[in-house]
This record gives sequence, C-alpha cells and structure tokens, in this order.
Amino acid sequence: MARVNDHYLKLTASYLFTEIARRVRAFQETRPKAKIIRLGIGDVTQPLPPAVIQALHAAVDEMGRPETFRGYGPEPGYEFLQTLIAKHDYGERGVTVGLEEIFVSDGAKSDTGNIQEIFAADGAIALTDPVYPVYMDSNVMAGRAGTAGADGRYDRVVYLPCVAENGFEPPLPDRPVDLVYLCFPNNPTGAVLGRPALRRWVDWARRHGAVLLYDAAYEAYIREPDVPHSIYEIEGAREVAIEFRSFSKTAGFTGTRCAFTVVPKDVQGRDAAGAPVSLNALWLRRQSTKFNGVPYLIQRAAAAVYTDEGRRQVRAIVDYYMDNARVIREGLEAAGLTVYGGRNAPYLWVKTPPGLSSWDFFDKLLGEAHVVGTPGSGFGPSGEGYFRLTAFGRREQTAEAVERIKTRLRL
Amino acid sequence: MARVNDHYLKLTASYLFTEIARRVRAFQETRPKAKIIRLGIGDVTQPLPPAVIQALHAAVDEMGRPETFRGYGPEPGYEFLQTLIAKHDYGERGVTVGLEEIFVSDGAKSDTGNIQEIFAADGAIALTDPVYPVYMDSNVMAGRAGTAGADGRYDRVVYLPCVAENGFEPPLPDRPVDLVYLCFPNNPTGAVLGRPALRRWVDWARRHGAVLLYDAAYEAYIREPDVPHSIYEIEGAREVAIEFRSFSKTAGFTGTRCAFTVVPKDVQGRDAAGAPVSLNALWLRRQSTKFNGVPYLIQRAAAAVYTDEGRRQVRAIVDYYMDNARVIREGLEAAGLTVYGGRNAPYLWVKTPPGLSSWDFFDKLLGEAHVVGTPGSGFGPSGEGYFRLTAFGRREQTAEAVERIKTRLRL
Repeated sequence: MARVNDHYLKLTASYLFTEIARRVRAFQETRPKAKIIRLGIGDVTQPLPPAVIQALHAAVDEMGRPETFRGYGPEPGYEFLQTLIAKHDYGERGVTVGLEEIFVSDGAKSDTGNIQEIFAADGAIALTDPVYPVYMDSNVMAGRAGTAGADGRYDRVVYLPCVAENGFEPPLPDRPVDLVYLCFPNNPTGAVLGRPALRRWVDWARRHGAVLLYDAAYEAYIREPDVPHSIYEIEGAREVAIEFRSFSKTAGFTGTRCAFTVVPKDVQGRDAAGAPVSLNALWLRRQSTKFNGVPYLIQRAAAAVYTDEGRRQVRAIVDYYMDNARVIREGLEAAGLTVYGGRNAPYLWVKTPPGLSSWDFFDKLLGEAHVVGTPGSGFGPSGEGYFRLTAFGRREQTAEAVERIKTRLRL
Repeated sequence: MARVNDHYLKLTASYLFTEIARRVRAFQETRPKAKIIRLGIGDVTQPLPPAVIQALHAAVDEMGRPETFRGYGPEPGYEFLQTLIAKHDYGERGVTVGLEEIFVSDGAKSDTGNIQEIFAADGAIALTDPVYPVYMDSNVMAGRAGTAGADGRYDRVVYLPCVAENGFEPPLPDRPVDLVYLCFPNNPTGAVLGRPALRRWVDWARRHGAVLLYDAAYEAYIREPDVPHSIYEIEGAREVAIEFRSFSKTAGFTGTRCAFTVVPKDVQGRDAAGAPVSLNALWLRRQSTKFNGVPYLIQRAAAAVYTDEGRRQVRAIVDYYMDNARVIREGLEAAGLTVYGGRNAPYLWVKTPPGLSSWDFFDKLLGEAHVVGTPGSGFGPSGEGYFRLTAFGRREQTAEAVERIKTRLRL
C-alpha cells in the first residue's frame, strides 16, 4: 500500500467541538425543554448586506449571457477587486500596496493553512498560545511542529503564552524561529496590539530575519483610533510580514467565501545556498498551480463591499455585533465575572471563577444558564482557566443569554 | 532570513503560455490587421445554463434574508449536492458511492494539486506523458519528483509515454510506484480508456498496492457507450482509486468554481509501521483544516445541473462543443492532417506534419492561418510532434479557423 504522510498521524485529534456537541446532547436529553443558546460559535448570523445582494444578482445575469460570461479568471484575483482593496484597505490608511502583492482567495483559513508550504519543512515556528488551530495543524501536517508530548505540546513549536498577566501580548521568542503567526485582533482572546507592541515585533523580525504571518481577519472590529489595522502601518513591515484579511466577519461572507493575502515584493526568504528568494513569487506560483481563483460573481460581491452603500451597510453589521459584545461584557461583569476582549474584537475572553477549569465552567454555564460557549483550553494550554464567547449571535438571543447568566449563574 | 521550500526552485518555469503570448504579440506587430483566432485555450465560451442562473438568483435571495442566510457550511459540501452526485453521477451507472465519500471542492485543479499532501513525501509517482502540468508541479513542490535533468525530465518520476504508437494508452509502470495519475478522457490527447484497459490498471494497482488518482473531469464528453465514465465501474476500483470530477467543462463553471472528489472508504494507505490508514479520513482532515467549503450559492448552482432542465441544457452545451470537435477534426483531416481525440473528448491532438516540431507547427499555423493552438511539447517530452486544439470556442470562430486551415495552410 502507498505510504501516507505520517505527520498527519501526529495531529492530536481535535475533540473540542465533538466534545461540546456530546455534552450539549447529554444535557438536552436530561432537560428536553431547556432552550439552549449558543454563544460559542465563530459564525455570523446577519445576512449579506443589500449592496452585496444587488451586485450578486447583476453578476449572475452577466454569467448567463455569452457576451458578458466569464470563464477562468486570473488566479490572484480580478484587478477590479485588487484595486479597491489597495485603495480602501491600505491607501486610506497611508499604506501603499501594489496590485501584484494582493492575492484574492477563498478564505483566510485556506491562506493561513497553505502559506507554510512555501517555507522549508525544517523551519522553526512560533505560535501564540492560545491560538486559532489552523496555524498549528497545518504545520503538524507538514512535519514542522514535531510530535506532541503527553501534555499535548509539540516539541518543535515555540509557544508564546498570552495570558492576563502579560495583557495577552505575546512575548518575543526566546530562541531563533523562522515563522511567527500573529493574529490581531486576536481569536480567541479579543486582544489587540498597539503601535509600540507591533513595532517591537517588526523590529525583532527584521533583526532576526524572521517572517511574521499576520492574520488581520478581524481588523474591522478595531474601535480605538491608535490601534493599527494593518501591520504595514509599521515602518519596515513590508520586509518581514505577510498579512491575511477576510470578508467573512465584516460583510458576512463565512458561507460566501472571499479573502485576500498581501505578500509584499520586499519580503524574502533564502534558499539552501543562502540566496534571497521572493516570497511573492513563490506564493504566486503556489496559487497559480493549486488554485483557480475565486468565482467571478463572488469577487463582484466583494467589490460591492467598497461602494458607499456597501461600506455603510458593513459598518452597521459590525456595529451590531460590537453592540452584542458590549451587552455580553457588561452583563458578565455585572454577574461578577472578569471579561477581556470585546472592545476591539468580536470575541470575549472570560476568566473562569477560582477553582473552575474551562470545562468546569462550560458545564456550569450549560447547566445553570443553558448557554453554550467554548472552553479556552481547547485553544491551547494557556487557554486553561478561560472561556470564549462570541458576539456573532442575534441580538435577542444574545440579550437573553446574558440575562440568564446574570440571574441564574451561581457564582 | 527564513528558509524557503527549496523544492519550489526545482520547478522548470512553465514558459509555455508566456512563450505563446510572446509569439502571438510579435506576429500581431508585423501583421496588425490579421484577425487571430485562438483554439488553444482550455476555457469554455458558452454561458451558464438558464437552470443554473435561476438557481443562483434564488440562492442569492436566500443569502439576503436572516431566516435563510447561510454561514459556514460543512467543509466536504452540503448534503443536498452530495446526494445528487451520488444518485446521478454514480447510482445511474450502477455505482454505489456514500455521501461521506464525496468531497465538494472549488476545483479539480485544487484537488488534484492537493491530494499528494496526504501521501509520504518520499513516495514514487508515475505520470502519463504528455500530462496536465498540475500533477507534475504539485509533486515537484513537495519534493516527490526529484530534480529535472537537462532534458527537462525529473529523475524520480516514472513517465508513461502516451503516443500514437500505443494508441495513447499508458503502459503499466515497469517498476514499483505508489501513486499513478490517470486522466481519461485525456487532456491533452483526447484519448479514452476502454473497460479492458481500465480493468488492467485496477488489477495492477490492487496487485502492487498502488493508488490510482483518476481525473475524470471530461467524462461528460464520452460518446461511445462502452467507455466507462467512472473508474468505479470497474470491480475492485473502490480499493485503489480516488476520482476527480468537475462542473467546469460540463456546465461552464470555469469561472464559477465547483468540483468534487470521491475518496472511497475502502482505499487505504499505510503508515511507517505498515498499519493501514484510511485515505478518506486523511482527506477529510486535510479539507477540514485547510478549506472552508464551496460557497452556498455555488453549491446551489451545481445542484441545478441535476434538474431535468439543467441536464438537458448541459447536454446541449456538451453537444455544441462536440460539434465543434467534429468540425475541427473533419476540417483538419480534409487538409491532410492526422487528428486524434475529439470523439470522446473536447481536445484534438494533431500530429504535426513530417519534419515539423510542435513549435514549428505553432508558427506555421499562426503565420499562415492566423490560428493559435498549443504546442504538444508543452505538455511533456512525448508531446513533441503533436499539437493541441480545443473544441471550447464559439461555433463561428471555430468554423472560420478550420476554413482558414483548410484553405491557407500549405502542407
């Protein structure tokens, strides 16, 4: 039989959501009439904005007529969309990004999962802890993470703990690494990095020749004016950083699939002989070989996000979720809980009460308030003692969940 | 600087389409009034069928209402589409495929490019020659192909020449290999494998413990009743074959992006210790980790292909292209050329006249008939002396190109 990729067998099976489902089912069986509210999922609930719907209908009609039908598009995306991204996401913040540096894709998950392919298999990686599992799992699959010990930690990964004690700001790695995954605003902690902290990272990467893989999928949720939306707002970042963005959590594209990645022409790696290699060229080759571009009509939908109406409508959606975040934060604080995040991010990171593990708190919240969240320990060892709630629910459900937590949770 | 994946640097830069563009541009400069017709591209020209357009509009409306909006879908695809695939693509041909064996994706290019990830990096691969470049390039990038010699051949790849002398039927590998890429109906030769030939491959794979990666993206073009549409029509294939399908060349989805891959639960690899590992489980893990599913509305569009009207309309599109194929074949044969393919495939594989290389014929066709095709040598060493034309053009353009070849080409 053909030999399989043995690295896949080193994945610690992610039982997080399976285990959540099991416990919810077990609870529902004992309390069939309990009305469970889920505040644990990272999926959006608001429909696509009207400007996007309108653009989609128009693009669908184009696809039905021979004279406007579109077949294969350019793998890195249509210029009409790249131009809007360059202008609005970057130009308006004083950042210059070239069209050939923008790669439109079907998701930040695909891109953050695939980006490691262009790097050496024996490179060293650093990950924040807790972390979005795709960064870790894609590296485990490539053999770069090594093997997990009994404590679930991979022996070749440098973990950067983000906990209340350090303000959820990752410490710089204490040994040489090639790649660092950073996600700000952060999933799951909801933390952001201010300009000085981000500058520290860029300077460190320039000094050590590391590449920063910067996931900014939640930048639209930033409310404080001095928090950078793009890592390229920091001088020198074009030499060391690749940035990931997404339409998923802004325009509600989780089921519509569009994102983009910026690979500046200035960022380089080196080959075995030490010669510099353009990462932009490698990523273009990767995408041209294994990807055929985002559907034309989806790119038209994404372009509509940048119209005046589109921007207004998207801002209203983000406001809606951020108001949820406020409702959750205030409610939980009123209930006596300590809550982080939710100010510049759609995620709330709750400290579990003394003596309760992440799973203990999961059971308590489910049992007493019939509310489902996500145990922080599911995101990594440093997530133990925390609990994630999201602001992506519908308003009335979110409000009811918070009301129950305030009135029924025995703290 | 971070070390890059050195295997990427072993890719022989594909100058095929760049070189075609350069020569066309140079010709156009000397003959600015010449009206060039392109019969070289693999892209479709007919618009999406009305049933698909209608389904898209309906799905777009669903996405605009809170009560019908869809966020993240299941990574392997919605059951409504998997059910239709299982019933129509397989059930109607007497093949049983389970829903958990069907993985809906954004393209056969992505899937045939990514599938190698689940196999060991030191596995041996065999490729037909000529070949669709993605199979080769994705293996070069993973280090599995080795290094290209001066003749462009990679030292670790087993080449299976498909030429007129063997009826374009690949010989069985003469040494042990783990993976074999087969594409039938074939791009670029237009050849098909009959039932006995396909059975020979399945039996060989079972005997040698190899996995067949069977690209059936063009099965809708099969006209002869005894040619299998799916490798699973052969007994035992479920134990050794993974099959790739696409909506690109049937319903015109090249710019709309939907395909699917079947990984039977019976097909296994083995780990380092020799224990069997389910390839279905590995592919599910790969797709769940690095892919977020096909947009809901695109899956609804694909589902419309299976309605009565959808099937009628798709058949009409395929008939249209196959009529182009007939026009090209008859015209070229009338001009004295030897033409293969085009009977069960949208590709015509033309033998270049004695003494003319693939590129010589390219220049001749462009210079004398102002028609652009693809030199066969661009698809691999055994493509030398051949030339690819496709049937995906518009009728009037195709007919005019053929007329010019008949009247202007000096053979």
